[in-house]
Amino acid sequence: MDNKYADVMNLLLEVLKDNKNGNEIPVGISNRHIHLSQADLDALFGVGYQLTKMKDLSQPGQYACKETVTVVGPKGAIEKVRILGPVRKATQVEVIAGDSFKLGVAGDVRMSGDLAGTHGVTLVGPKGSVQTREGLIVAQRHIHMTLADAARLGVKDGDIVDIKVAGPRGGVLSNVAIRANDSSALECHIDTEEANGLGLTSKSTITIVK
Amino acid sequence: MDNKYADVMNLLLEVLKDNKNGNEIPVGISNRHIHLSQADLDALFGVGYQLTKMKDLSQPGQYACKETVTVVGPKGAIEKVRILGPVRKATQVEVIAGDSFKLGVAGDVRMSGDLAGTHGVTLVGPKGSVQTREGLIVAQRHIHMTLADAARLGVKDGDIVDIKVAGPRGGVLSNVAIRANDSSALECHIDTEEANGLGLTSKSTITIVK
Repeated sequence: MDNKYADVMNLLLEVLKDNKNGNEIPVGISNRHIHLSQADLDALFGVGYQLTKMKDLSQPGQYACKETVTVVGPKGAIEKVRILGPVRKATQVEVIAGDSFKLGVAGDVRMSGDLAGTHGVTLVGPKGSVQTREGLIVAQRHIHMTLADAARLGVKDGDIVDIKVAGPRGGVLSNVAIRANDSSALECHIDTEEANGLGLTSKSTITIVK
Repeated sequence: MDNKYADVMNLLLEVLKDNKNGNEIPVGISNRHIHLSQADLDALFGVGYQLTKMKDLSQPGQYACKETVTVVGPKGAIEKVRILGPVRKATQVEVIAGDSFKLGVAGDVRMSGDLAGTHGVTLVGPKGSVQTREGLIVAQRHIHMTLADAARLGVKDGDIVDIKVAGPRGGVLSNVAIRANDSSALECHIDTEEANGLGLTSKSTITIVK
Protein backbone atom coordinates (compact mmCIF):
# COMPACT_ATOMS: atom_id res chain seq x y z
CA MET A 1 0.00 0.00 0.00
CA ASP A 2 1.24 3.47 -0.84
CA ASN A 3 2.72 5.00 2.34
CA LYS A 4 0.98 8.31 1.74
CA TYR A 5 -2.40 6.59 1.80
CA ALA A 6 -1.45 4.69 4.93
CA ASP A 7 -0.52 7.96 6.65
CA VAL A 8 -3.78 9.54 5.57
CA MET A 9 -5.79 6.56 6.77
CA ASN A 10 -4.03 6.58 10.15
CA LEU A 11 -4.71 10.27 10.58
CA LEU A 12 -8.37 9.82 9.68
CA LEU A 13 -8.73 6.85 11.99
CA GLU A 14 -7.43 9.00 14.81
CA VAL A 15 -10.04 11.65 14.01
CA LEU A 16 -12.90 9.25 13.58
CA LYS A 17 -12.35 6.55 16.15
CA ASP A 18 -14.52 6.26 19.18
CA ASN A 19 -12.67 7.87 22.07
CA LYS A 20 -13.09 5.18 24.67
CA ASN A 21 -9.37 4.65 25.19
CA GLY A 22 -8.58 7.18 27.91
CA ASN A 23 -7.49 10.04 25.66
CA GLU A 24 -10.30 12.39 26.67
CA ILE A 25 -9.11 15.73 28.03
CA PRO A 26 -11.32 17.77 30.40
CA VAL A 27 -12.38 21.22 29.22
CA GLY A 28 -11.81 24.36 31.31
CA ILE A 29 -13.74 27.46 30.24
CA SER A 30 -12.29 30.93 30.86
CA ASN A 31 -14.28 34.13 30.94
CA ARG A 32 -12.57 37.51 30.65
CA HIS A 33 -10.01 38.13 33.42
CA ILE A 34 -6.84 40.03 34.20
CA HIS A 35 -3.38 39.31 35.58
CA LEU A 36 -1.68 42.34 37.20
CA SER A 37 1.92 43.32 37.86
CA GLN A 38 2.58 44.51 41.43
CA ALA A 39 3.27 48.02 40.07
CA ASP A 40 -0.15 48.16 38.35
CA LEU A 41 -1.82 46.58 41.42
CA ASP A 42 -0.24 49.36 43.53
CA ALA A 43 -1.55 52.03 41.14
CA LEU A 44 -5.08 50.59 41.08
CA PHE A 45 -5.53 49.49 44.72
CA GLY A 46 -2.87 51.41 46.68
CA VAL A 47 0.86 50.92 47.30
CA GLY A 48 1.75 47.49 48.71
CA TYR A 49 -1.75 46.10 48.19
CA GLN A 50 -2.12 42.32 48.54
CA LEU A 51 -4.71 40.38 46.52
CA THR A 52 -7.42 38.46 48.41
CA LYS A 53 -7.74 34.83 47.33
CA MET A 54 -11.37 33.85 46.71
CA LYS A 55 -11.05 30.45 45.01
CA ASP A 56 -8.29 28.14 43.82
CA LEU A 57 -8.23 27.42 40.07
CA SER A 58 -7.49 24.07 38.48
CA GLN A 59 -3.90 25.01 37.65
CA PRO A 60 -1.71 24.68 40.79
CA GLY A 61 -0.93 28.01 42.51
CA GLN A 62 -3.42 30.01 40.43
CA TYR A 63 -6.47 31.56 42.08
CA ALA A 64 -9.39 33.91 41.47
CA CYS A 65 -9.34 37.04 43.65
CA LYS A 66 -12.07 39.00 45.38
CA GLU A 67 -10.89 42.12 43.57
CA THR A 68 -12.10 43.26 40.14
CA VAL A 69 -11.23 46.19 37.87
CA THR A 70 -12.97 48.11 35.10
CA VAL A 71 -11.42 47.77 31.62
CA VAL A 72 -11.97 50.82 29.40
CA GLY A 73 -11.38 51.35 25.67
CA PRO A 74 -12.21 54.15 23.24
CA LYS A 75 -15.74 52.79 22.62
CA GLY A 76 -16.82 51.41 25.96
CA ALA A 77 -16.10 49.89 29.34
CA ILE A 78 -16.43 46.44 30.89
CA GLU A 79 -16.95 46.43 34.64
CA LYS A 80 -16.09 43.80 37.24
CA VAL A 81 -13.32 42.04 35.34
CA ARG A 82 -11.96 39.41 37.76
CA ILE A 83 -8.31 39.57 38.81
CA LEU A 84 -6.46 36.24 38.88
CA GLY A 85 -3.50 35.83 41.24
CA PRO A 86 -0.71 35.72 42.03
CA VAL A 87 0.73 38.94 40.55
CA ARG A 88 2.83 38.50 37.41
CA LYS A 89 5.83 40.22 35.86
CA ALA A 90 3.58 41.92 33.27
CA THR A 91 -0.07 42.94 33.31
CA GLN A 92 -2.18 40.91 30.89
CA VAL A 93 -5.86 41.53 30.09
CA GLU A 94 -7.60 38.49 28.61
CA VAL A 95 -10.91 39.35 26.98
CA ILE A 96 -13.32 37.42 24.78
CA ALA A 97 -13.56 38.48 21.13
CA GLY A 98 -16.95 40.13 21.66
CA ASP A 99 -15.39 42.40 24.30
CA SER A 100 -13.04 43.83 21.66
CA PHE A 101 -16.04 45.28 19.81
CA LYS A 102 -17.44 46.77 23.01
CA LEU A 103 -14.08 48.27 24.04
CA GLY A 104 -13.26 49.43 20.51
CA VAL A 105 -9.79 47.91 20.62
CA ALA A 106 -8.74 44.53 19.24
CA GLY A 107 -7.47 41.76 21.46
CA ASP A 108 -4.95 39.79 19.40
CA VAL A 109 -5.15 35.99 19.63
CA ARG A 110 -2.02 35.16 21.66
CA MET A 111 -0.64 32.71 24.18
CA SER A 112 -0.30 33.95 27.75
CA GLY A 113 2.90 36.01 28.12
CA ASP A 114 3.32 36.65 24.38
CA LEU A 115 2.36 40.32 24.57
CA ALA A 116 4.79 42.14 22.23
CA GLY A 117 2.88 44.33 19.79
CA THR A 118 -0.53 43.84 21.41
CA HIS A 119 -2.76 46.78 22.24
CA GLY A 120 -2.97 48.65 25.53
CA VAL A 121 -6.10 49.55 27.44
CA THR A 122 -7.13 51.63 30.43
CA LEU A 123 -7.68 49.90 33.78
CA VAL A 124 -9.62 51.57 36.58
CA GLY A 125 -9.48 50.47 40.22
CA PRO A 126 -10.68 51.95 43.51
CA LYS A 127 -7.48 53.97 44.08
CA GLY A 128 -6.48 55.01 40.57
CA SER A 129 -6.15 54.12 36.90
CA VAL A 130 -3.45 52.76 34.61
CA GLN A 131 -2.97 53.08 30.87
CA THR A 132 -1.21 49.88 29.81
CA ARG A 133 1.20 50.00 26.88
CA GLU A 134 0.32 46.48 25.74
CA GLY A 135 -1.22 43.25 27.03
CA LEU A 136 -4.79 43.09 25.69
CA ILE A 137 -5.22 39.58 24.27
CA VAL A 138 -7.80 36.99 23.36
CA ALA A 139 -6.31 33.77 24.72
CA GLN A 140 -5.14 31.24 22.17
CA ARG A 141 -6.75 27.91 23.04
CA HIS A 142 -4.28 25.56 24.68
CA ILE A 143 -3.95 22.36 26.66
CA HIS A 144 -2.14 22.19 30.00
CA MET A 145 -0.62 18.85 30.90
CA THR A 146 2.28 17.18 32.71
CA LEU A 147 5.26 15.79 30.81
CA ALA A 148 3.89 12.31 31.62
CA ASP A 149 0.52 13.25 30.04
CA ALA A 150 2.39 14.57 26.99
CA ALA A 151 4.32 11.32 26.59
CA ARG A 152 1.12 9.29 26.92
CA LEU A 153 -0.71 11.48 24.40
CA GLY A 154 2.22 11.58 21.99
CA VAL A 155 2.75 15.36 22.02
CA LYS A 156 5.35 17.72 23.47
CA ASP A 157 5.47 21.23 24.91
CA GLY A 158 5.03 23.81 22.15
CA ASP A 159 3.25 21.50 19.69
CA ILE A 160 0.23 22.92 17.85
CA VAL A 161 -2.58 20.39 17.49
CA ASP A 162 -6.19 20.14 16.39
CA ILE A 163 -8.87 19.05 18.85
CA LYS A 164 -12.03 17.12 18.09
CA VAL A 165 -15.31 18.25 19.67
CA ALA A 166 -18.31 15.88 19.68
CA GLY A 167 -22.00 16.80 19.83
CA PRO A 168 -24.55 18.73 17.75
CA ARG A 169 -22.28 21.79 17.61
CA GLY A 170 -19.13 19.73 17.24
CA GLY A 171 -16.23 19.95 14.83
CA VAL A 172 -12.47 20.32 14.86
CA LEU A 173 -10.63 23.35 16.28
CA SER A 174 -7.17 24.09 14.90
CA ASN A 175 -4.17 25.91 16.39
CA VAL A 176 -4.41 24.54 19.91
CA ALA A 177 -1.08 24.91 21.74
CA ILE A 178 0.38 22.22 24.02
CA ARG A 179 1.70 23.56 27.36
CA ALA A 180 3.48 20.70 29.09
CA ASN A 181 5.50 21.00 32.30
CA ASP A 182 5.94 19.26 35.63
CA SER A 183 3.15 20.95 37.52
CA SER A 184 0.15 21.39 35.21
CA ALA A 185 -3.25 19.75 35.59
CA LEU A 186 -4.55 18.14 32.38
CA GLU A 187 -7.09 20.60 30.96
CA CYS A 188 -7.98 22.16 27.60
CA HIS A 189 -8.51 25.90 28.07
CA ILE A 190 -10.98 27.64 25.79
CA ASP A 191 -13.00 30.79 26.37
CA THR A 192 -16.76 31.21 26.82
CA GLU A 193 -17.42 32.06 23.16
CA GLU A 194 -15.46 29.07 21.89
CA ALA A 195 -17.29 26.87 24.42
CA ASN A 196 -20.75 28.19 23.56
CA GLY A 197 -20.09 28.15 19.81
CA LEU A 198 -19.02 24.50 19.96
CA GLY A 199 -21.59 23.41 22.57
CA LEU A 200 -18.97 22.64 25.25
CA THR A 201 -19.51 22.90 29.01
CA SER A 202 -17.21 22.48 32.01
CA LYS A 203 -18.27 18.81 32.04
CA SER A 204 -17.17 18.22 28.43
CA THR A 205 -14.07 16.48 27.17
CA ILE A 206 -12.19 16.78 23.88
CA THR A 207 -9.55 14.66 22.17
CA ILE A 208 -6.35 15.62 20.39
CA VAL A 209 -6.09 15.17 16.63
CA LYS A 210 -2.44 15.36 15.70
CA MET B 1 -5.85 1.48 -5.79
CA ASP B 2 -8.29 0.47 -3.09
CA ASN B 3 -11.48 2.50 -3.58
CA LYS B 4 -11.76 3.27 0.12
CA TYR B 5 -8.37 4.96 0.05
CA ALA B 6 -9.31 6.90 -3.09
CA ASP B 7 -12.48 8.14 -1.38
CA VAL B 8 -10.51 9.17 1.68
CA MET B 9 -7.91 10.99 -0.43
CA ASN B 10 -10.58 12.83 -2.38
CA LEU B 11 -12.30 13.92 0.83
CA LEU B 12 -9.04 15.12 2.32
CA LEU B 13 -8.07 16.96 -0.85
CA GLU B 14 -11.37 18.81 -0.64
CA VAL B 15 -10.63 19.78 2.96
CA LEU B 16 -7.06 20.79 2.31
CA LYS B 17 -7.08 22.43 -1.10
CA ASP B 18 -6.63 26.13 -1.44
CA ASN B 19 -10.07 27.64 -1.90
CA LYS B 20 -9.40 29.87 -4.86
CA ASN B 21 -11.95 28.27 -7.13
CA GLY B 22 -15.06 30.29 -6.43
CA ASN B 23 -16.50 28.07 -3.73
CA GLU B 24 -16.24 30.62 -0.95
CA ILE B 25 -19.52 31.35 0.84
CA PRO B 26 -20.08 34.69 2.63
CA VAL B 27 -20.74 34.56 6.37
CA GLY B 28 -23.78 36.22 7.99
CA ILE B 29 -23.65 36.63 11.76
CA SER B 30 -26.86 36.60 13.80
CA ASN B 31 -27.24 38.00 17.28
CA ARG B 32 -30.23 37.04 19.46
CA HIS B 33 -33.56 37.97 17.88
CA ILE B 34 -37.22 37.02 17.82
CA HIS B 35 -39.90 36.20 15.24
CA LEU B 36 -43.48 36.83 16.43
CA SER B 37 -46.87 35.45 15.46
CA GLN B 38 -49.53 38.12 14.88
CA ALA B 39 -51.39 36.89 18.00
CA ASP B 40 -48.30 37.38 20.18
CA LEU B 41 -47.53 40.72 18.49
CA ASP B 42 -51.09 41.81 19.36
CA ALA B 43 -50.63 40.75 22.98
CA LEU B 44 -47.28 42.54 23.33
CA PHE B 45 -47.90 45.72 21.30
CA GLY B 46 -51.71 46.03 21.03
CA VAL B 47 -54.37 44.44 18.82
CA GLY B 48 -53.70 44.86 15.09
CA TYR B 49 -50.21 46.26 15.62
CA GLN B 50 -47.99 46.49 12.51
CA LEU B 51 -44.20 46.09 12.76
CA THR B 52 -42.00 49.02 11.66
CA LYS B 53 -39.30 48.04 9.16
CA MET B 54 -35.90 49.45 10.14
CA LYS B 55 -33.52 47.63 7.81
CA ASP B 56 -33.70 44.94 5.12
CA LEU B 57 -31.75 41.75 5.84
CA SER B 58 -29.75 39.78 3.29
CA GLN B 59 -32.48 37.16 2.86
CA PRO B 60 -35.18 38.55 0.50
CA GLY B 61 -38.32 39.77 2.33
CA GLN B 62 -36.77 39.57 5.80
CA TYR B 63 -36.16 42.74 7.81
CA ALA B 64 -35.12 44.03 11.23
CA CYS B 65 -37.82 46.04 13.01
CA LYS B 66 -37.68 49.10 15.18
CA GLU B 67 -39.49 47.18 17.91
CA THR B 68 -37.80 45.10 20.61
CA VAL B 69 -39.06 42.94 23.49
CA THR B 70 -37.71 41.75 26.81
CA VAL B 71 -37.16 37.99 27.11
CA VAL B 72 -37.51 36.67 30.68
CA GLY B 73 -36.64 33.29 32.19
CA PRO B 74 -36.55 31.94 35.77
CA LYS B 75 -33.01 33.25 36.36
CA GLY B 76 -32.90 36.54 34.50
CA ALA B 77 -34.02 38.84 31.70
CA ILE B 78 -32.52 40.05 28.42
CA GLU B 79 -33.74 43.44 27.30
CA LYS B 80 -34.01 44.93 23.82
CA VAL B 81 -34.19 41.70 21.84
CA ARG B 82 -34.74 42.75 18.23
CA ILE B 83 -37.90 41.63 16.40
CA LEU B 84 -37.39 40.40 12.82
CA GLY B 85 -40.26 40.74 10.36
CA PRO B 86 -42.57 39.82 8.80
CA VAL B 87 -44.75 38.02 11.36
CA ARG B 88 -44.67 34.23 11.22
CA LYS B 89 -47.09 31.40 11.93
CA ALA B 90 -45.33 30.63 15.23
CA THR B 91 -43.30 32.75 17.63
CA GLN B 92 -39.64 31.75 17.73
CA VAL B 93 -37.02 33.17 20.11
CA GLU B 94 -33.45 32.68 18.86
CA VAL B 95 -30.86 33.22 21.59
CA ILE B 96 -27.14 32.60 21.80
CA ALA B 97 -25.99 29.78 24.10
CA GLY B 98 -24.71 32.22 26.73
CA ASP B 99 -28.21 33.71 27.00
CA SER B 100 -29.56 30.32 28.12
CA PHE B 101 -27.43 30.55 31.27
CA LYS B 102 -28.62 34.09 31.96
CA LEU B 103 -32.30 33.19 31.40
CA GLY B 104 -32.02 29.89 33.27
CA VAL B 105 -33.71 27.97 30.49
CA ALA B 106 -31.98 26.00 27.73
CA GLY B 107 -32.30 26.92 24.09
CA ASP B 108 -32.13 23.68 22.12
CA VAL B 109 -29.99 23.70 18.96
CA ARG B 110 -32.64 23.60 16.22
CA MET B 111 -33.33 24.73 12.70
CA SER B 112 -35.79 27.59 12.29
CA GLY B 113 -39.37 26.30 12.48
CA ASP B 114 -38.43 23.02 14.19
CA LEU B 115 -39.86 23.96 17.57
CA ALA B 116 -41.60 20.82 18.87
CA GLY B 117 -40.41 20.00 22.39
CA THR B 118 -38.38 23.19 22.85
CA HIS B 119 -38.79 25.33 25.96
CA GLY B 120 -41.07 28.32 26.41
CA VAL B 121 -40.15 31.69 27.82
CA THR B 122 -41.85 34.91 28.92
CA LEU B 123 -41.93 37.87 26.50
CA VAL B 124 -42.66 41.38 27.71
CA GLY B 125 -43.71 44.24 25.44
CA PRO B 126 -45.09 47.75 26.01
CA LYS B 127 -48.72 46.59 26.07
CA GLY B 128 -48.52 43.22 27.76
CA SER B 129 -46.69 39.93 28.22
CA VAL B 130 -46.89 36.43 26.75
CA GLN B 131 -45.81 33.08 28.17
CA THR B 132 -44.84 30.98 25.14
CA ARG B 133 -45.41 27.23 25.26
CA GLU B 134 -42.31 26.50 23.13
CA GLY B 135 -39.99 28.20 20.66
CA LEU B 136 -36.76 29.05 22.53
CA ILE B 137 -33.90 27.85 20.31
CA VAL B 138 -30.23 28.33 19.59
CA ALA B 139 -30.10 28.40 15.80
CA GLN B 140 -28.43 25.45 14.12
CA ARG B 141 -25.81 26.80 11.74
CA HIS B 142 -26.98 26.62 8.14
CA ILE B 143 -26.28 27.85 4.63
CA HIS B 144 -28.92 29.61 2.52
CA MET B 145 -28.55 29.25 -1.24
CA THR B 146 -30.46 29.04 -4.49
CA LEU B 147 -31.03 25.71 -6.23
CA ALA B 148 -28.47 26.86 -8.83
CA ASP B 149 -25.90 27.48 -6.06
CA ALA B 150 -26.67 24.04 -4.66
CA ALA B 151 -26.09 22.39 -8.03
CA ARG B 152 -22.81 24.28 -8.47
CA LEU B 153 -21.63 23.37 -4.97
CA GLY B 154 -22.75 19.74 -5.26
CA VAL B 155 -25.22 19.77 -2.37
CA LYS B 156 -29.02 19.72 -2.04
CA ASP B 157 -31.65 21.11 0.31
CA GLY B 158 -31.59 19.26 3.63
CA ASP B 159 -28.00 18.03 3.36
CA ILE B 160 -25.84 18.27 6.47
CA VAL B 161 -22.27 19.34 5.71
CA ASP B 162 -19.09 20.42 7.44
CA ILE B 163 -17.61 23.85 6.78
CA LYS B 164 -13.96 24.83 6.83
CA VAL B 165 -12.90 28.04 8.58
CA ALA B 166 -9.46 29.54 7.91
CA GLY B 167 -7.39 31.75 10.19
CA PRO B 168 -5.75 31.59 13.63
CA ARG B 169 -9.01 30.45 15.24
CA GLY B 170 -9.95 28.24 12.31
CA GLY B 171 -11.15 24.68 12.13
CA VAL B 172 -14.04 22.64 10.82
CA LEU B 173 -17.64 23.02 12.04
CA SER B 174 -19.93 20.02 11.67
CA ASN B 175 -23.72 19.72 11.38
CA VAL B 176 -24.29 22.67 9.05
CA ALA B 177 -27.66 22.39 7.29
CA ILE B 178 -28.17 23.26 3.61
CA ARG B 179 -31.28 25.41 2.97
CA ALA B 180 -31.73 25.65 -0.80
CA ASN B 181 -34.72 27.20 -2.56
CA ASP B 182 -35.47 29.60 -5.39
CA SER B 183 -35.24 32.84 -3.47
CA SER B 184 -32.33 32.61 -1.01
CA ALA B 185 -29.16 34.69 -1.04
CA LEU B 186 -25.97 32.62 -0.68
CA GLU B 187 -24.92 33.02 2.95
CA CYS B 188 -23.72 30.85 5.83
CA HIS B 189 -25.60 31.82 9.00
CA ILE B 190 -23.82 31.43 12.33
CA ASP B 191 -24.36 33.26 15.60
CA THR B 192 -22.11 35.73 17.40
CA GLU B 193 -20.56 33.13 19.69
CA GLU B 194 -19.75 30.77 16.84
CA ALA B 195 -18.30 33.71 14.88
CA ASN B 196 -16.19 35.01 17.76
CA GLY B 197 -15.04 31.54 18.81
CA LEU B 198 -13.84 30.81 15.26
CA GLY B 199 -12.52 34.30 14.50
CA LEU B 200 -15.11 35.03 11.79
CA THR B 201 -16.48 38.46 10.88
CA SER B 202 -19.17 39.65 8.48
CA LYS B 203 -16.38 39.98 5.89
CA SER B 204 -15.30 36.33 6.21
CA THR B 205 -16.02 33.44 3.88
CA ILE B 206 -16.12 29.69 4.52
CA THR B 207 -16.11 26.65 2.25
CA ILE B 208 -18.16 23.48 2.31
CA VAL B 209 -16.49 20.17 3.18
CA LYS B 210 -18.85 17.42 2.11
